[in-house]
Amino acid sequence: MQVNRNRAQTIKLKNQPKIIGSYSIVGPKEGDGNFKNYFDYVMKEDHFGEDSFEKAERKMIENAITGVVQKAKLQPKDIDMMIAGDLLNQIISSSYAARAFEFPFLGVYGACSTMAESMAVASVLVDGGYCENVVCCTASHFSTAERQYRFPLELGNQRPPTAQWTVTGAGACVLSMNGQGPRVSSVTFGKVVDWGIRDVNNMGAAMAPAARHTLLSHFNNTKTSPEDYDLIVTGDLGKLGSEILIDLMEEEGVKLGLNYGDCGQMYFKRQQRTLCGGSGAGCCATVFNSFIMAKLRERQYKKVLFLPTGALLSTTSSQQGDTVPGVCHAIVVES
Amino acid sequence: MQVNRNRAQTIKLKNQPKIIGSYSIVGPKEGDGNFKNYFDYVMKEDHFGEDSFEKAERKMIENAITGVVQKAKLQPKDIDMMIAGDLLNQIISSSYAARAFEFPFLGVYGACSTMAESMAVASVLVDGGYCENVVCCTASHFSTAERQYRFPLELGNQRPPTAQWTVTGAGACVLSMNGQGPRVSSVTFGKVVDWGIRDVNNMGAAMAPAARHTLLSHFNNTKTSPEDYDLIVTGDLGKLGSEILIDLMEEEGVKLGLNYGDCGQMYFKRQQRTLCGGSGAGCCATVFNSFIMAKLRERQYKKVLFLPTGALLSTTSSQQGDTVPGVCHAIVVES
Repeated sequence: MQVNRNRAQTIKLKNQPKIIGSYSIVGPKEGDGNFKNYFDYVMKEDHFGEDSFEKAERKMIENAITGVVQKAKLQPKDIDMMIAGDLLNQIISSSYAARAFEFPFLGVYGACSTMAESMAVASVLVDGGYCENVVCCTASHFSTAERQYRFPLELGNQRPPTAQWTVTGAGACVLSMNGQGPRVSSVTFGKVVDWGIRDVNNMGAAMAPAARHTLLSHFNNTKTSPEDYDLIVTGDLGKLGSEILIDLMEEEGVKLGLNYGDCGQMYFKRQQRTLCGGSGAGCCATVFNSFIMAKLRERQYKKVLFLPTGALLSTTSSQQGDTVPGVCHAIVVES
Repeated sequence: MQVNRNRAQTIKLKNQPKIIGSYSIVGPKEGDGNFKNYFDYVMKEDHFGEDSFEKAERKMIENAITGVVQKAKLQPKDIDMMIAGDLLNQIISSSYAARAFEFPFLGVYGACSTMAESMAVASVLVDGGYCENVVCCTASHFSTAERQYRFPLELGNQRPPTAQWTVTGAGACVLSMNGQGPRVSSVTFGKVVDWGIRDVNNMGAAMAPAARHTLLSHFNNTKTSPEDYDLIVTGDLGKLGSEILIDLMEEEGVKLGLNYGDCGQMYFKRQQRTLCGGSGAGCCATVFNSFIMAKLRERQYKKVLFLPTGALLSTTSSQQGDTVPGVCHAIVVES
């Protein structure tokens, strides 16, 4: 352990758990986006044959977990633990999906940073020899998130230019002691940062300070700089938020160059009219577990710094006039 | 690691992290209950000087963390990680409280089992040498839970005989590599169990099957039986739920004797009219971090099996006609 108090905490993993399988399932709009050729499954319609969007989100998680266990060439009985979370109140998509499986369930919540949180905890469990195979999963659904956090879908409310589009999708991976695949070499647990943003339609600005904090801590803790990575990729800061992060880092003397990207900003095509881009826990989860993992497997990327960000608000906190704190956890994956 | 697939998973901790500090803060009604002499702080009124119950809940967490770090004779800079969760949507009480501190934040959600989940993850982080000191915290507040999960407080809705009373309180502890205190010797991660209960006013019945599953797995995995523990204590099954658990275990040939108790069932005095007893994430968190820890420190209890249970529902899942799945994680603490 590197002791770096008052900073985000970096844990170097001695045994470097392998990501032996990854799986992504997305909605039709996402399937038309920039990563269309990389997803494992594109749903024909957002209901996914269920009678509510919430049940569709749950089914995406069930299918992602079943799919990733198969892709990892394992049986469900080989899985020691499932770590998952999502954006719905009481993370019901994950909890209810967990009923379908015989392995223990650990529910985590870090809003759109949840994929990193589940992978970070899984990495420690595997690295320390406590578990052999752990499945991590995160999801979001445009229609469940929109109606829970913002407005009824039927209202057809106008979206401000800073708005992002919640990705309908679930991403899952299996971390293992054994087998072949890209390795998790370190994880950095971030702290909660709040710079006073109150606009719930500007999540990128709310989360950028947390990304800045974790990124600076991570570089400091690991004695690395942006050039050491083939890809530095934040979760869903979106177009505006990722520009803010670039500016904030430049103020600190750290230049994020062409190897920096943001999953939300890259997700959709311009003509798909998502304004500032994709968002939601499923955004970076589906990009990581499709495109990024493919490039790591092909060794086109040798070292990736994956930084999902989360905005930790609720409708209650917004209605009570609270600002929006952010959090960001980082994972280093090497091929 | 003991590999026990298709069962709850038990992790034996080689280095046995020490619980070097515990702290509990409760509301006035809780302060009049059966554990009144054991709490660190009893609030004079439920608002705790804040302008909303939600902000009071957040303040309880902040104070519990500040209090437990002091009681552990540490400085905030000595803490490597905070692991916390609560019952509010998007665990805002924990996330917003985390802003007040400089250490990284890991949000977890297991409903009323959250204290066990945070302690189990912390135990692994400390046992594996990844962190030196981890603070765990969980809270609930009667007035925030009641209005979020059930009815507006002003409605004065009648409570059915199976109802339980959400405890207003926060409990926190510090797990450490060093120092003195009761030791965590093993943790058992439970799986999600759903036996089809739909009554949101009968959480005890919904959670008892998960407690049964984790308890049977734990005994099996560790080759122990009820007589090996000075205290076996579930979280908030309440009066009815704990009777159901005793029956379910008897059907399996396991007799829970006088060393079995339930925090919810024991929390309040009869004349406090809480029907089936206490509940909420703060229920077992405040009992464990006051009474149980005191008895462990006095060595009146030498070996305690602590089994917080959680009901993983949301208002959305209930409104969509879903049943209520439960989960239960177990922690063994030895003096």
